[in-house]
Amino acid sequence: MGRNVNVAVLGIGNIGGEVARRIVAGSGATAATGLDLRLVAAMDRGPEQAERAGIDPGLVSPDGAAIVDLDEVDVVVETLGGEQPAADLMIRALAGGKHVVTANKEAVAKHLPAILAAARDGGAAFMFEASVGGGIPLIVSLRQILTNNEVLSMRGILNGTTNYILHRMESEGSDYASALAGAQELGYAEPDPTADVEGIDAANKIAILASLISGTHIHPDQVDRTGISAVTLDDFEDARARGGTLRLIASAVKEAGGLTLKVAPTFVSNDDLFSRVVRNFNAVEIVGDRVGPVWLHGQGAGPDPTASAILSDIAEAVLAGHAATPMLGR
Amino acid sequence: MGRNVNVAVLGIGNIGGEVARRIVAGSGATAATGLDLRLVAAMDRGPEQAERAGIDPGLVSPDGAAIVDLDEVDVVVETLGGEQPAADLMIRALAGGKHVVTANKEAVAKHLPAILAAARDGGAAFMFEASVGGGIPLIVSLRQILTNNEVLSMRGILNGTTNYILHRMESEGSDYASALAGAQELGYAEPDPTADVEGIDAANKIAILASLISGTHIHPDQVDRTGISAVTLDDFEDARARGGTLRLIASAVKEAGGLTLKVAPTFVSNDDLFSRVVRNFNAVEIVGDRVGPVWLHGQGAGPDPTASAILSDIAEAVLAGHAATPMLGR
Repeated sequence: MGRNVNVAVLGIGNIGGEVARRIVAGSGATAATGLDLRLVAAMDRGPEQAERAGIDPGLVSPDGAAIVDLDEVDVVVETLGGEQPAADLMIRALAGGKHVVTANKEAVAKHLPAILAAARDGGAAFMFEASVGGGIPLIVSLRQILTNNEVLSMRGILNGTTNYILHRMESEGSDYASALAGAQELGYAEPDPTADVEGIDAANKIAILASLISGTHIHPDQVDRTGISAVTLDDFEDARARGGTLRLIASAVKEAGGLTLKVAPTFVSNDDLFSRVVRNFNAVEIVGDRVGPVWLHGQGAGPDPTASAILSDIAEAVLAGHAATPMLGR
Repeated sequence: MGRNVNVAVLGIGNIGGEVARRIVAGSGATAATGLDLRLVAAMDRGPEQAERAGIDPGLVSPDGAAIVDLDEVDVVVETLGGEQPAADLMIRALAGGKHVVTANKEAVAKHLPAILAAARDGGAAFMFEASVGGGIPLIVSLRQILTNNEVLSMRGILNGTTNYILHRMESEGSDYASALAGAQELGYAEPDPTADVEGIDAANKIAILASLISGTHIHPDQVDRTGISAVTLDDFEDARARGGTLRLIASAVKEAGGLTLKVAPTFVSNDDLFSRVVRNFNAVEIVGDRVGPVWLHGQGAGPDPTASAILSDIAEAVLAGHAATPMLGR
């Protein structure tokens, strides 16, 4: 009935597998979109990954380049994670005129200019709502505001794992080590938690946002970064005495000398909405010169919210084409 | 340099005047959009209104129909307010292939199906971000979520005037009458405050949101509505004793029997983000079946944030055409 959209998914782990299953189940897009999504190929190591994800093994192959080159593919969803081969595959797909939708903050943060150039050359949409803030409609909101505002600053709780740990220290009086162990038990933290607890994940995300608001490429190495592994219960005691608490805040602030970029455990007063962000939620504040402060809150990770953002991006890419791409110095 | 976009503004009061002035000043769209907005006509009673708004009187005439019929107009901004002639002029413009951008909650709430039909027939975009939640990127977020979620409920503080009054009662212990008088002094409340304090404004707004999430037209008369004029300091005392406060909450909740639509002073616990909405701010929660709860907060009114939403809608309408129209049972 609807317009057919052929989708290939690169990487069918937690997130990509969820996207692929929803498409196969016919619930990748609501009837109101007029779109009928179809899964035509998936990249992963082999039949074992296909089976684990519940995807027809006949659709799965390990050759990503061959998949993105398939004529019948309209949209490539990239959920491999990591810098390479993800970035090269996205560039190849876009240059070949395929829309690309990704949840990959590292590849986007490090390769945004080359990816956007490929999108322009290929006349295709490049969409990355899922790369920052999971299910929060953040990139679409930022795009709207940027059409006629200068964004003066952004602040965010962009990593759910560290917020879970800090909130547990705050609310239960657990020390850092036992709060981290609790997060690992629940699957909120990886066995090697470095990328989360040292602020690397948050730095990738604020670099993406900073690139959008400045119209120039900000590499995550430019972010002044401090993680949460040295935060103690004494620090929370001090914050409480000052009428607030601690959160891992990523920020990009425009000042006379340029952008100041930072990820650090930060005091937030009890009047500040950020002090109310609990468990593994994310939140972001965008301050525009006309619109004032806009604050968004929601699930920043997890298969359901992240897949929701990816599926929205697929629909917008198909409906609006290259024009759907969030702007960066166009 | 950019692509020329010819704009007509109907009604150059607080909001429309701000939009018109920004366009004339060359700050209606950032360079990144590639658009160059031009004011080609404005509707208002006469030269006096033009002068008050700081607009060239030669562009202003009282004949709205003649303005929307002008061949050179690409986008009509409707900021007249009220049901008519606003609704008829929007329908006329859309049927003639012009994009329409409005801040008018009453006309949208009451005439949405006819307006959307005209947009379809004319192949034009109909945009109404500014009609609900001022500068909050609400409609664009809702559109994104609706591409692949069922929205189970929405709750919102959608009227800044009543929030200002309730927050002043809460924080200063003023009674209703003196808090209202204070709001009137600051220009937050009209001399006749009925539409705000009796929840009529909020009912129009929740009707628009309910129409979007249900894919069917919800008229504001279908909303069970109670205003704030009977709220007393005793009610706040009771709420405080129960660990919370009072806010005017507009809600649309999907239940087995259909949608339940309500505007009423409502207890919100201190854990609820809505309890932290102060002064004249607005906030909205969207609960999707996949994305979970998404919560947005910002300036719900005022010339700057509202003009920002209107100018964003102009850019999106021109960039994406009819496809930019928020969906309703398409």
